[in-house]
Amino acid sequence: MTSEFSITRTVEFAETDMAGIMHFANFFRWMESCETALYRSLGLPLISFVPGEIVGWPRVNVSCTYRSPLRFNDAVEVRLFVKKLGTRSVTYVFQFRKDGVLAAQGEVTAVCVGASEKGGMVSQPIPDAIRTKLQEAPESAWA
Amino acid sequence: MTSEFSITRTVEFAETDMAGIMHFANFFRWMESCETALYRSLGLPLISFVPGEIVGWPRVNVSCTYRSPLRFNDAVEVRLFVKKLGTRSVTYVFQFRKDGVLAAQGEVTAVCVGASEKGGMVSQPIPDAIRTKLQEAPESAWA
Amino acid sequence: MTSEFSITRTVEFAETDMAGIMHFANFFRWMESCETALYRSLGLPLISFVPGEIVGWPRVNVSCTYRSPLRFNDAVEVRLFVKKLGTRSVTYVFQFRKDGVLAAQGEVTAVCVGASEKGGMVSQPIPDAIRTKLQEAPESAWA
Amino acid sequence: MTSEFSITRTVEFAETDMAGIMHFANFFRWMESCETALYRSLGLPLISFVPGEIVGWPRVNVSCTYRSPLRFNDAVEVRLFVKKLGTRSVTYVFQFRKDGVLAAQGEVTAVCVGASEKGGMVSQPIPDAIRTKLQEAPESAWA
Repeated sequence: MTSEFSITRTVEFAETDMAGIMHFANFFRWMESCETALYRSLGLPLISFVPGEIVGWPRVNVSCTYRSPLRFNDAVEVRLFVKKLGTRSVTYVFQFRKDGVLAAQGEVTAVCVGASEKGGMVSQPIPDAIRTKLQEAPESAWA
Repeated sequence: MTSEFSITRTVEFAETDMAGIMHFANFFRWMESCETALYRSLGLPLISFVPGEIVGWPRVNVSCTYRSPLRFNDAVEVRLFVKKLGTRSVTYVFQFRKDGVLAAQGEVTAVCVGASEKGGMVSQPIPDAIRTKLQEAPESAWA
Repeated sequence: MTSEFSITRTVEFAETDMAGIMHFANFFRWMESCETALYRSLGLPLISFVPGEIVGWPRVNVSCTYRSPLRFNDAVEVRLFVKKLGTRSVTYVFQFRKDGVLAAQGEVTAVCVGASEKGGMVSQPIPDAIRTKLQEAPESAWA
Repeated sequence: MTSEFSITRTVEFAETDMAGIMHFANFFRWMESCETALYRSLGLPLISFVPGEIVGWPRVNVSCTYRSPLRFNDAVEVRLFVKKLGTRSVTYVFQFRKDGVLAAQGEVTAVCVGASEKGGMVSQPIPDAIRTKLQEAPESAWA
């Protein structure tokens, strides 16, 4: 069971802005990349359109605190922690580290949804195939 | 029948890069915005998921030539010209002007597709509802 | 003195994701667009590279809560409220409304910085030219 | 001397659009990523702000032809070929392959610039430190 996961990623030119640093909105794309990589590593789809089992994870609440800027070509570790594994939702904490120093910390709460009968999305309990592969990290890991 | 269309748009902070100018890839997003606005103005969807009439316009060939940079807060006119209206495809020319001066010129060829029986995309003749609202601009307009 | 400001903006094709809705990270770009438009309306630069007066607003904390999805071509009102006007920072609340219904609410805290002697960024009191044009909105406006 | 270079990259969720495929503009960001990785591998900066040696590579002409779509989580090889090494410019060809099959082919011509005396950008001959590390690929490699 996984409670932590990390990727290393390099700041791209197109991710910088005229202030010379990674644009703040891009940190959220990186969080999602790390989450996606976690799911790939577990052999699970982050999103599935197989009829009858459409599962997605729309975000209901996200946040990020920025401490120091990231610059072009910086190699950055993005580390995910499972903060809370609820019945229908999961909350991740993400830490961005450059040379070991915390540059930013974010949080994402996503709700598990399936297809409603009308074709829309409806929240559903996290399927066992996913739940059994995740567990909460101790608060000491990320706080 | 429409052969030209334009929007005015302002360069956003997130669209700049560390060189202090609009990132070159964003010009393509602006071309698509202008195309979308044209379709809205004609009361047509750029993409439709209505069953039986799924129509989309995947791009098959795009290009852009850059003459002078665009900067944060620049107000820019993006002007679309219908260069070629084919049976199953359309080619647009786009001109980006700042204070009347041409900053960039692009071209997009998109193919009209509908849903295949297997659920994939298959090219189709441009529906009359669309074709009758467009016409080619004379080359003198954009060359 | 301004405590509220709004823009209307349309969801672009490139802002959607394969779930068919606006990608969650793009809400933060829209918040910044609204902030930029506020500054333009006040005749103030959001960022200035004039030597000796370099002023920027790096974000230190941002968040967003999502209630209902935004879709391609949706016209959305983004309304900014000045929540807190500190000595060196400002906190905005942003509400995203579609047909009057709240789709998302975000918050951004940005710190005012100037150039340090070494060429880096250092926080500074918000210049009077800016401060005198802004005032806090009552909590009843956005809560 | 290098005439070819490649990276493998995975399509991210945020890079897809509501048609369920990678948005066409993102291919240009991937081309730049591959170019950046080439420069990193050569120990060269793609852009340098060291006073007196500011070197950048603004794009003057870019294009892309799309053959088949890329989808979320697809692992894609992006291969760069040095097509033409001019005095002040370089042209790259980029091929995107999924399972060995060509999905898209692009081209980028970039001009080498340094800082003008007024602080602007002016084209300059490609510095020897860069030129000596690159060579043109035979046309048979990419045509």
